[in-house]
Amino acid sequence: MSDADQQKIASLQAERAEQDSKVQQLRASNTDQTTLKAEIGKLKKLEAQLAALGLGSSKAGSSKQEVKFTLKTPKGTRDWEPLAMSLRKRIFSTIEEVFSAHGAVTIDTPVFELKEILSGKYGEDSKLIYDLQDQGGELCSLRYDLTVPFARFVAMNQSEYGNVKRYHIAKVYRRDQPAMSKGRFREFYQCDIDIAGVYDPMVPDSEVLCILVEALDALGMEGFTIKINHRKILDGIFDICGVPADKIRTISSAVDKLDKSPWSEVRREMTVDKGLAEDVADKIGEYVKLKGGRDLLEKLKTDATMMGHKTASAGVKDMELLFDYLDVYGIADRMSFDLSLARGLDYYTGLIYEAVTSASAPPGFTGEPTAGGADKTLKKKKKGGDDDEVDESTVGVGSIAAGGRYDNLVGMFSGSKKPDAVPCVGVSIGVERVFAIMMQRLREKEAANQRTIRAKDTDVYVMSIGGEGLLKERMQVSKMLWDAGIKAEFMHKAKPKLPAQFGVVDKEGIPFAVILAPNEWNGETREVRVKQQKGKESDEGQGQGEVVRLDGLVEYLKGLGAGKGAVALKERESII
Amino acid sequence: MSDADQQKIASLQAERAEQDSKVQQLRASNTDQTTLKAEIGKLKKLEAQLAALGLGSSKAGSSKQEVKFTLKTPKGTRDWEPLAMSLRKRIFSTIEEVFSAHGAVTIDTPVFELKEILSGKYGEDSKLIYDLQDQGGELCSLRYDLTVPFARFVAMNQSEYGNVKRYHIAKVYRRDQPAMSKGRFREFYQCDIDIAGVYDPMVPDSEVLCILVEALDALGMEGFTIKINHRKILDGIFDICGVPADKIRTISSAVDKLDKSPWSEVRREMTVDKGLAEDVADKIGEYVKLKGGRDLLEKLKTDATMMGHKTASAGVKDMELLFDYLDVYGIADRMSFDLSLARGLDYYTGLIYEAVTSASAPPGFTGEPTAGGADKTLKKKKKGGDDDEVDESTVGVGSIAAGGRYDNLVGMFSGSKKPDAVPCVGVSIGVERVFAIMMQRLREKEAANQRTIRAKDTDVYVMSIGGEGLLKERMQVSKMLWDAGIKAEFMHKAKPKLPAQFGVVDKEGIPFAVILAPNEWNGETREVRVKQQKGKESDEGQGQGEVVRLDGLVEYLKGLGAGKGAVALKERESII
Repeated sequence: MSDADQQKIASLQAERAEQDSKVQQLRASNTDQTTLKAEIGKLKKLEAQLAALGLGSSKAGSSKQEVKFTLKTPKGTRDWEPLAMSLRKRIFSTIEEVFSAHGAVTIDTPVFELKEILSGKYGEDSKLIYDLQDQGGELCSLRYDLTVPFARFVAMNQSEYGNVKRYHIAKVYRRDQPAMSKGRFREFYQCDIDIAGVYDPMVPDSEVLCILVEALDALGMEGFTIKINHRKILDGIFDICGVPADKIRTISSAVDKLDKSPWSEVRREMTVDKGLAEDVADKIGEYVKLKGGRDLLEKLKTDATMMGHKTASAGVKDMELLFDYLDVYGIADRMSFDLSLARGLDYYTGLIYEAVTSASAPPGFTGEPTAGGADKTLKKKKKGGDDDEVDESTVGVGSIAAGGRYDNLVGMFSGSKKPDAVPCVGVSIGVERVFAIMMQRLREKEAANQRTIRAKDTDVYVMSIGGEGLLKERMQVSKMLWDAGIKAEFMHKAKPKLPAQFGVVDKEGIPFAVILAPNEWNGETREVRVKQQKGKESDEGQGQGEVVRLDGLVEYLKGLGAGKGAVALKERESII
Repeated sequence: MSDADQQKIASLQAERAEQDSKVQQLRASNTDQTTLKAEIGKLKKLEAQLAALGLGSSKAGSSKQEVKFTLKTPKGTRDWEPLAMSLRKRIFSTIEEVFSAHGAVTIDTPVFELKEILSGKYGEDSKLIYDLQDQGGELCSLRYDLTVPFARFVAMNQSEYGNVKRYHIAKVYRRDQPAMSKGRFREFYQCDIDIAGVYDPMVPDSEVLCILVEALDALGMEGFTIKINHRKILDGIFDICGVPADKIRTISSAVDKLDKSPWSEVRREMTVDKGLAEDVADKIGEYVKLKGGRDLLEKLKTDATMMGHKTASAGVKDMELLFDYLDVYGIADRMSFDLSLARGLDYYTGLIYEAVTSASAPPGFTGEPTAGGADKTLKKKKKGGDDDEVDESTVGVGSIAAGGRYDNLVGMFSGSKKPDAVPCVGVSIGVERVFAIMMQRLREKEAANQRTIRAKDTDVYVMSIGGEGLLKERMQVSKMLWDAGIKAEFMHKAKPKLPAQFGVVDKEGIPFAVILAPNEWNGETREVRVKQQKGKESDEGQGQGEVVRLDGLVEYLKGLGAGKGAVALKERESII
């Protein structure tokens, strides 16, 4: 089918959907029959046009129930349900506390940028950028990461933010193959922290690595390693091995795949796809299999060719300083100096790094270069839809954080004479992957009957006993609790049944039931019964609960821990 | 210029921008001259094509500095700087505390939805929806509000979330005329809370209004009024006055403009633009000028025509119940029952409301219908760009919150036989407008030398005195503070100058300086000097500060209030 045909079909389908919903809406608003019939006529015509192209059924519009919506979120995106949101909020606030302990400020930028801002920043991945439709006015694209918008922001505000430590937690967009159970989405959050400004070598770099270790520790990520490498060492190696200057970035991209593909496959990409001489590829192979800690650094320092190469030796010198600082922070043993780490993005100019866990690699994949086995690249399975979807059973969650130094990116925007007038270094934590790992753990805990997170934090359920329902009285008590900062709910029924009310308390795990009964709440007394819910096992011990006078209720509940940390509405300070 | 021409130009411009940045990037990566020249050649060719169309200069690409980026955010969008983010976070957390006191959970949905989900939901405003470009696959649009995605979510998850009180704070997108200083953007935040589920009449509705009052009070919004009305009363009035059924929604839209335009203008729109008979319009005019509280309700109850109209009298009955509940919550006096309130959106079916402040109306505009003066509609001024921009001096911030009952929206998605199987009611707080009002106040306070919000909360600046710089020692002390949950920074220089370091402390308003000096920190002693900064006036009293042993530093600082509320890294509990 030609592009033009596909476009025509897509446009017809959109028109039909539009007309569908118009008809449905007219029905909902009880429009007169003449108008309705005219609109249904238009709908049928569109259906007929689609049918003529061999698509769609002509039934829609012929009866009330047949106007259908595709009830789903777009491919690669998801809804966040309340429990997931509770976990997500905890992850974000944990990361934010670490970031702000380092004196970082936060900024936010628009979800879309002018198209030209993003152009030419992402190498081979530029094809994954989402564009907005041209509806007149500027051409825009959804942001692909938070780094390029940050550089654009710094370039625009260089006098005020030429020196800044900022974090940004926000969604980014990539038209990639989703593997959703592993946290690989088309819309996903990134948590970035970057340090911009002219500082002494490796001082900001080592602090960023320190922040990364603290954040992953605070999140409870176990057994992670941070692979580190240096673009100058890598570029030096490529030069020493004989890679032509204009092939360095593309060969670097190939090397970057060594965490997912065996050496044989990467070598094939270099030589067959990218036209590199075989002996050059083999020389690269000797270097990129090296990994270690400070020992590797010492080994490189004995390599006369490397130390004689201006770029490479500058990289080695940086790494030596870095290891000194990492020792001060006590985190050198969390690193793996790994010459195969290359990072796909074009803009890195110095230190690069990537945090991995055991969950990062695909199942059964060791990550070691092997002689054969090109079949180990990610398998894809066809799924009737618009394009391939990754078979999730064959992939790992990938790296859980990555970053590096990018000294020229701000200069690309500001057009400054000195391309590295505002050098930057930063890291992006892949929170979706962290989330996927934590959610898996949470499910295991729940399966073992350990409730760890509630979707909501309601303290009190305000209930009534007896046929009168006492609706206004329940409202009155709830309002008193809300005003005091105690989280409270009641059933939105005039005469709710007792079992239904207790059902909510049990299902939601609400710790306190405040019960209004006609004999305790009447013309003469204003008393309620407070029952502390401690799970089914210990309910009996509580009996009928405590009778408490209304004017002492707030104090009584607070004494038992309800509304912990909350501030009464009237005692709130001004927010500025 | 034809559409095809415009498209060609846009596409050429995009190509040129892409090529521009490619060249710039190649330069940054020190590519060989042959490759670079070839790419510059391509760039020049694109420039020439544009020049032939009378656009662009052919200079770009001819010298390093002439490759230009448009350094701006897209029209109607903005960056959030650190101070603005501090304020935004306070506004959000204040609103969240109120929402969660009512037992609300939160969800999140993708920024874009399938195009057909949004189609036909927004009446005349559908033209303001942003579409994503068709890059193959599904057709998608950026969300226009949070209500339609919520209804889609509930319809998809009806068994679990058919009864839910949820809030959602997120960005939405409208291709509208921006008036940015008044908080009218193309990308902006909404804070929504909605209650879905079958409940007794006006119980959820009154709680939503209670939440709204509590939230606006907690935010410190002064002198706001919540206008309330009921779609059934309004539709009844239209029917009684003789509006044909198929004109009801469009006439309702016209009435909705009465807060910005005088009656004469609205009447003209009804009769001239929308073909309504003049006497029908005049009858409507008699009704929609009515406003009041419970007194208006009593007045309507004496109107025999209205009480004899099935729809209208059902609305009056609802309002009577509502006022009873608002009395229980003690918030009836915050409402204005206003028959001119119509709300533009199609999907409302019952109670509707809108919160306004004195800042809501355009300057010098009373909001009262007047006899003449059609010239009072918003003035627009031409601004060379793609379309008009609103003259901000003539507009107010508009309503600061709005919402209502929409009983059929979930049914439109679920295709349920009962269109109101999952009735809903909710409110959306216009936080951008709240933010604009608060930011204005903040600036006034700052102008009066009252610092109220800091962009960051750093407790301690770790400094050195003397020529040695003591970099690793400053790192060591900072790491100790970070681990203890105390927010600390140091200057990223090996040998920083003392005045530069004190300059940061003063500029950022950091409360503690921890100073390392060679005579106190050496081979034998590990002591630092702590200096409490209390502004320039009281500095003298502090003298040289206190000398503190390193191993007692954390305790000493915490005793003075540093790191308040923070948890040490090692004492953190698991987040699940």
